[in-house]
Amino acid sequence: MNHFDSITLNKKNGQHLYIQLYNNIKDLIKSGSIKSQSKLPPIRKLANILEVNNVTVVSAYKLLEREGYVYKKVGSGTFVKDMNTRDIQNIVINEDVSSIGDNPNEYKKQGNLNNVINFASTAPTPNLFPVNDFKQVINEVLDRDGGNAFVYQESQGYYPLRASIHQYLEGYNIKSNINDIQIISGAQQGIDILTKSLVDYGDIVFTESPTYTGAIAAFKSREAKIIEIPIKEDGIDIISLENKLKNFRPKFIYVMPNFQNPTGYTYSKEKKERILKLAKEYNTYIIEDDYLSDLKFNDNKSYTLKSIDEEDRVIYIKSFSKIFMPGLRLAFMIIPKAIYTDVLSAKHTSDIFTSGLIQRAFDIYLRKGIWKKHIINMETLYKKRLEKMTESLKKHLPKNVKWGKPNGGLNFWISLPNGYSSNELYKLCSKNGIIFVPGSLFYVDQKDNQHFRLSIASIDWDEIDLSVKKLSNLIRQFLEDSNEGQIPMDVYTPFL
Amino acid sequence: MNHFDSITLNKKNGQHLYIQLYNNIKDLIKSGSIKSQSKLPPIRKLANILEVNNVTVVSAYKLLEREGYVYKKVGSGTFVKDMNTRDIQNIVINEDVSSIGDNPNEYKKQGNLNNVINFASTAPTPNLFPVNDFKQVINEVLDRDGGNAFVYQESQGYYPLRASIHQYLEGYNIKSNINDIQIISGAQQGIDILTKSLVDYGDIVFTESPTYTGAIAAFKSREAKIIEIPIKEDGIDIISLENKLKNFRPKFIYVMPNFQNPTGYTYSKEKKERILKLAKEYNTYIIEDDYLSDLKFNDNKSYTLKSIDEEDRVIYIKSFSKIFMPGLRLAFMIIPKAIYTDVLSAKHTSDIFTSGLIQRAFDIYLRKGIWKKHIINMETLYKKRLEKMTESLKKHLPKNVKWGKPNGGLNFWISLPNGYSSNELYKLCSKNGIIFVPGSLFYVDQKDNQHFRLSIASIDWDEIDLSVKKLSNLIRQFLEDSNEGQIPMDVYTPFL
Repeated sequence: MNHFDSITLNKKNGQHLYIQLYNNIKDLIKSGSIKSQSKLPPIRKLANILEVNNVTVVSAYKLLEREGYVYKKVGSGTFVKDMNTRDIQNIVINEDVSSIGDNPNEYKKQGNLNNVINFASTAPTPNLFPVNDFKQVINEVLDRDGGNAFVYQESQGYYPLRASIHQYLEGYNIKSNINDIQIISGAQQGIDILTKSLVDYGDIVFTESPTYTGAIAAFKSREAKIIEIPIKEDGIDIISLENKLKNFRPKFIYVMPNFQNPTGYTYSKEKKERILKLAKEYNTYIIEDDYLSDLKFNDNKSYTLKSIDEEDRVIYIKSFSKIFMPGLRLAFMIIPKAIYTDVLSAKHTSDIFTSGLIQRAFDIYLRKGIWKKHIINMETLYKKRLEKMTESLKKHLPKNVKWGKPNGGLNFWISLPNGYSSNELYKLCSKNGIIFVPGSLFYVDQKDNQHFRLSIASIDWDEIDLSVKKLSNLIRQFLEDSNEGQIPMDVYTPFL
Repeated sequence: MNHFDSITLNKKNGQHLYIQLYNNIKDLIKSGSIKSQSKLPPIRKLANILEVNNVTVVSAYKLLEREGYVYKKVGSGTFVKDMNTRDIQNIVINEDVSSIGDNPNEYKKQGNLNNVINFASTAPTPNLFPVNDFKQVINEVLDRDGGNAFVYQESQGYYPLRASIHQYLEGYNIKSNINDIQIISGAQQGIDILTKSLVDYGDIVFTESPTYTGAIAAFKSREAKIIEIPIKEDGIDIISLENKLKNFRPKFIYVMPNFQNPTGYTYSKEKKERILKLAKEYNTYIIEDDYLSDLKFNDNKSYTLKSIDEEDRVIYIKSFSKIFMPGLRLAFMIIPKAIYTDVLSAKHTSDIFTSGLIQRAFDIYLRKGIWKKHIINMETLYKKRLEKMTESLKKHLPKNVKWGKPNGGLNFWISLPNGYSSNELYKLCSKNGIIFVPGSLFYVDQKDNQHFRLSIASIDWDEIDLSVKKLSNLIRQFLEDSNEGQIPMDVYTPFL
């Protein structure tokens, strides 16, 4: 506690006390005076020591949490985050996902790596974008609609686009109603809007664990209590899910049933049916975040929950970023009737409407079937990469490093032996021109752990083998170097 | 209370109890069984009667509030909203601002009016959009950047655009730092992101009264307590503001110091200086929503608070929707350093980034000075309309209808004699082919009142006189018809 005793706040200098307190604690964390994973003093205690209101301490802790210095564990207090995780997260959040993840350009801009091997990104590279086709449809819209392409658009979305999407969904056996379709500016906005509509301060939501970082951030922004349910190779752990449902009333369960991010796992038929039944039994919604099911690959397992949802319990989010172009900033949701008005008004509060120009252009793109040609190209390309990647991982990875072959999609979930840190491995690899996403980013507490995600979206087929070999050698070196002097890391235990 | 006794909830039919309760109360309100302005039963009382949890009633009331059926008064309970206001608000929120406001196309789509006189919209009409210039810059970007126009973009915004904006701001005497500029997908998103960053459940914010509907909605979405400070012809009521500051600690004061929406009022030099001093003294932020100060018209009074902000207390939001094109979905903010990281991460959670294509195109548009040409055109055009409008209002409006000439901008704030309802007038006018925005939409409780807003953005110069004459005749008819049998409406008293 000595470090906290030494904090002095100046009530007269005009800066909010909580910001002063935030800065003081931040400095203590950064300087290493307060160690990672140590607990911050209880609120009243610190308020007493510093002779300030409880509210001041609460606000400072909240700010520390938002800025990624600490994390809260329900019922046990506030803890200092691992600073490696924070540094990596900072690249992701503040300098953009892209820097580490989805945009090699940005990474280059930082001058770190000129020929980075990018296993981090899940977005296609610009050379795969159908820019010429899209340029043509944009010009077609501008010639056809003139200024009308730039007027206020309905918040729900441009009607002809919703009609095209309705058609497109039939190809995936999803029955929809044009009026249940809500256009959004990307899947992240969809998650954010749903959170706004359904989650109030302190409400509970369930997620798979690990899960998509951006969803965790959106749920935290409404101060939701997030309960993580482990995911296995055949989908969410149903027993754990049912146990939690007996004790908690989540507003929804957020899942990616096909080629899950980050694990690449796909739900079995049984699990798809079970989770729908549980949602009915416990009267909750399922948010199905579908970013890839269009890429069907080998089998027909990648059908969506929405296609078998008879109870209108699935809120379906479809992104076009991962198969088309991330910069499109266009996605859609299918919204159950019971919550429709609420979601629409949250969309209105968020940004009023999504770009009319882009909606009109994408409408033509879908309507004329240009979309299908692109999907088939991407399917062929990614399928080849996925197979090559599987082959190379088999050949090169050390035997004590575990992974499974995904049914499709883009992601491989790799596990180092117990006690090894993927944050540390990340540091070694990024210095040597290879990036991926460390597992810490996919958990609520962002604690360092032994897992990491490799994606094939930004690696050309003919570079895969050599890249995996290089990565495997670095892993081998890392495991050997860490063998001595390494303080074993706790194996990750899901929160709650 | 009899109506509430009659409600029956079915615990077994699988639908959330709170949704059943919501539907029941909604039906009672719609059928007129519960009258407008009547108070709903206290939460515990209703929970007891219906034998449900308090939480069920709380959730049902919240849903009713969100859907616009009721409003909350701090400290006194939940009240049924005036259904006229709700109907009109519904057009605005659910069928888009545009239908009533900013997009005559949408209105036409509903088949109501083919030759509507639109005094409601504050957005320029499509014929004024510089579509050809913009088409050219879009194609320039596509040819220059190819796929890179569609990759992930930094959340903060495309660097060259931020540099262009920095330049542009110098023309308005605003000193900025390229790194303090945050690109957003429209001003509404800016307000939403700031609310997310700064406002927690139950926090207090101050607004002018009346104020922009979209801001009220964003603040409500975080369950902020909104305290309204009346605005006068020379700006916010400083005495009232200071009194409130003595008793409450707002997270920020949300203002439009130039050509305020909806009143058209502009702050005097003294008030601009006073509000900055008060923000310093009471240690809070000011959000300056600047949607029009570029249109300078007669004088130099329309300088921004940001241009005289020496304490980094003004969060500046600049929309391009009202002078350029609403469909652009592009705006920016200047963010004080102390809250920068927080705002950036809220932007990331909201939609990751704003369309790179549009950012790049608008960068060229600013950089090459095409922007200036457009501003000058708009200035000339709007100035002529403003003068014509002033002249026509003087000539035609009944003498007991009050209004003032704005210094610039687009809006006139008109007041019927005490006790007359602008919602009712709206109904009469819209049936007769004239639309405007009733005052109820600009207040937190959305209670019917005697004011309304007329805007000149969608009325051609040569139609103004005839349109104002037609409107004035309808007002005259309305005042006469209402004279008998009209239950006098309470004069609006600001909330708190």
